[in-house]
Amino acid sequence: MSDESRQPKASRRAFLTGSLAAGGALAAVGAARAAGDPAILELPDWTTTLGEGVDANPYGMPSEYEAHVVRRNVPWLTADPVSSVNFTPLHELDGIITPNGLCFERHHGGVAQVDPAQWRLMIHGLVETPLVFTLEDLKRFPRVNKVYFLECAANSGMEWRGAQLNGVQFTHGMIHNVMYTGVPLRTILEECGLKPAGKWMLAEGADAAAMTRSIPIEKALDDCMVAFKMNGEALRPEQGYPARLVVPGWEGNMWVKWLRRLEIGDKPWHHREETSKYTDLLPDGTARRFTWEMDAKSVITSPSPQAPITHGKGRTVITGIAWSGRGTIRRVDVSLDGGRNWLPARLDGPSFDKSIHRFYHEFDWDGRPLYLQSRAIDSTGYVQPTKDALRSVRGVNSIYHNNGIQTWYVNENGEAENVEVS
Amino acid sequence: MSDESRQPKASRRAFLTGSLAAGGALAAVGAARAAGDPAILELPDWTTTLGEGVDANPYGMPSEYEAHVVRRNVPWLTADPVSSVNFTPLHELDGIITPNGLCFERHHGGVAQVDPAQWRLMIHGLVETPLVFTLEDLKRFPRVNKVYFLECAANSGMEWRGAQLNGVQFTHGMIHNVMYTGVPLRTILEECGLKPAGKWMLAEGADAAAMTRSIPIEKALDDCMVAFKMNGEALRPEQGYPARLVVPGWEGNMWVKWLRRLEIGDKPWHHREETSKYTDLLPDGTARRFTWEMDAKSVITSPSPQAPITHGKGRTVITGIAWSGRGTIRRVDVSLDGGRNWLPARLDGPSFDKSIHRFYHEFDWDGRPLYLQSRAIDSTGYVQPTKDALRSVRGVNSIYHNNGIQTWYVNENGEAENVEVS
Repeated sequence: MSDESRQPKASRRAFLTGSLAAGGALAAVGAARAAGDPAILELPDWTTTLGEGVDANPYGMPSEYEAHVVRRNVPWLTADPVSSVNFTPLHELDGIITPNGLCFERHHGGVAQVDPAQWRLMIHGLVETPLVFTLEDLKRFPRVNKVYFLECAANSGMEWRGAQLNGVQFTHGMIHNVMYTGVPLRTILEECGLKPAGKWMLAEGADAAAMTRSIPIEKALDDCMVAFKMNGEALRPEQGYPARLVVPGWEGNMWVKWLRRLEIGDKPWHHREETSKYTDLLPDGTARRFTWEMDAKSVITSPSPQAPITHGKGRTVITGIAWSGRGTIRRVDVSLDGGRNWLPARLDGPSFDKSIHRFYHEFDWDGRPLYLQSRAIDSTGYVQPTKDALRSVRGVNSIYHNNGIQTWYVNENGEAENVEVS
Repeated sequence: MSDESRQPKASRRAFLTGSLAAGGALAAVGAARAAGDPAILELPDWTTTLGEGVDANPYGMPSEYEAHVVRRNVPWLTADPVSSVNFTPLHELDGIITPNGLCFERHHGGVAQVDPAQWRLMIHGLVETPLVFTLEDLKRFPRVNKVYFLECAANSGMEWRGAQLNGVQFTHGMIHNVMYTGVPLRTILEECGLKPAGKWMLAEGADAAAMTRSIPIEKALDDCMVAFKMNGEALRPEQGYPARLVVPGWEGNMWVKWLRRLEIGDKPWHHREETSKYTDLLPDGTARRFTWEMDAKSVITSPSPQAPITHGKGRTVITGIAWSGRGTIRRVDVSLDGGRNWLPARLDGPSFDKSIHRFYHEFDWDGRPLYLQSRAIDSTGYVQPTKDALRSVRGVNSIYHNNGIQTWYVNENGEAENVEVS
């Protein structure tokens, strides 16, 4: 251990003295005693009384003090909650894993409650041998484990026409990042034997919406999976229990849940979810189709409207997430002044292909207003654009694929707001 | 895409035909129709009726069909559930992440329900400036994200005197593997300024047991963390909410939960948890002390007594976990015949320092009895020993640090049992 490590950090000390003066709470023990801090002068109930035993919670839940950390929906956003969305509370999360209970939900016919004993996956069409798989059959093939983000194509969609929803949970919360266990789709398709004419695959769900999407066979044979576990345990019902399609880096709608059928064909099926929906309406009235890959994107999750700065000036931690449907995140830049000046953020935690990455920027806040932005650069060199740059190309008719740079205005009191800067 | 990938796998087909004949369910569509499989001939309720909406479950839970996947305790193991343990259902998990709700619990005075607003961390003793931290103070320091296993020193302890508990959940379930977000302990100690005489650190919990352990300052300054998040969300109450000590690779008892005090001293404190407990009683009546590092270990989680083979002979997947307190896992070997012959297992998923690793072995089961074993080799070259090898050195008085090779006997029906082979 270095001698350096044994010495107090004078600069940082000054820092905290400053923050203390400004209302920060870090206190010398003597000062805390003098201030009569009950937290160090009195023994709390949880120290003087026995707590619950190991038989109390067979499946554990968060602390009652975290009851506000939940998925939230916006009732006016859709006509009915059975064909709607709720949002991941990004402002309360850290690291890169989204807990299963907080992964946003999007379904078009409500959550299918599938009996795993009755679940079947049928593969037919342009294959040598059409097959029907039970869940047990699926689990007899070699498995892989991969961490991938799933982002709804409509994430941040409300922002095309300007700052709308005031909270990162609502502007960017249609994303989660999970470790999947499943079987490579390639293995299953090879089991059936693809015919040379097979160029496209139709994936169909067993829910009341019978969600169906056309997927090019090249993607199906590349990195797609049929997953039956997320973050170690069985898929959650709202995420497609007992098995879903995983389509890494591509829009969430294609990750068909409650998967029941894969048909191999020679052309796309042009179903509702790839014609009237999940296409980008351009200014001239034409539409971009098959815009599957999610472009590189990032957002600061704290501070943000739901996570204001409450400690006053002094040392402040900015954190956020970045991801790309085309690979890993090479760099994230952070701006405190609405994009005039950029500073490289500190990336921390695992870097996986097509996964969320976590970034931080620590700085000494002087208490003046901030215009916070983040900008992701992915492994292909692609740089996350401004919202205006996107609008100049795509107009404002679309509700999909908005990966523009987000701005949070932070006032002198540390309160944050969703704004736009030009 | 290669032409090869378009062709059926004749060998594998034969394989499955074999398994079909032996009761495996993978069926050609025609055969399934002929067999009148209702799962493909009738539309299930979850396809014909709308499911729950996005406002139904703000914090999601597993499917009702997974209600058996829970932590379980063994009532006769301890006098009272408030000073006891429950076990992670390893046989139902895959990948390397343990979901927060299934992480085993071990506490000595029940679960402390700590109010985060009242939580304080006091650091005193041989430091330049004793300090009291609030949770907000803690969150103003630079954070790191790391995946580590936590194993109780008593995991597999019942096995010292022979095969006892019939299920991997009970023989090896005192372990979990989580991504932590927190502040390096070194950062916090530097904030106070360590005095040169400071050689040891006492960590104390705020629970009714006031758990206390002595930790060498070198470890404290190396890779320890004060963590406030696990798998992205706040620590769970039973895991030390709002903050716990993370002591990578060392026995779980040292990872003090509900952390309230760190004292720097010049020698260990010789508290109860490091004298009468968490020491290894040897045949000659002396005891090994300060045996902190968890040696390399592995176990097959499926098939196992709670996860029998139900599909009959044919293609079979063996899976399990391996870990080491001294680094990563370089290799895992699997034996089907009680250790006479060894085959290298397939490692899959991320490999992190002091984290659980996932391994698989796929083979064609001929239906004859198996004696399944796994053997871990870590990045230091250490090879997991047999139970007998451990006993020859340490006898059978200890209840701690049993990392011996586990054997599962699998009979002709696929049922598994905890046994020992010599």
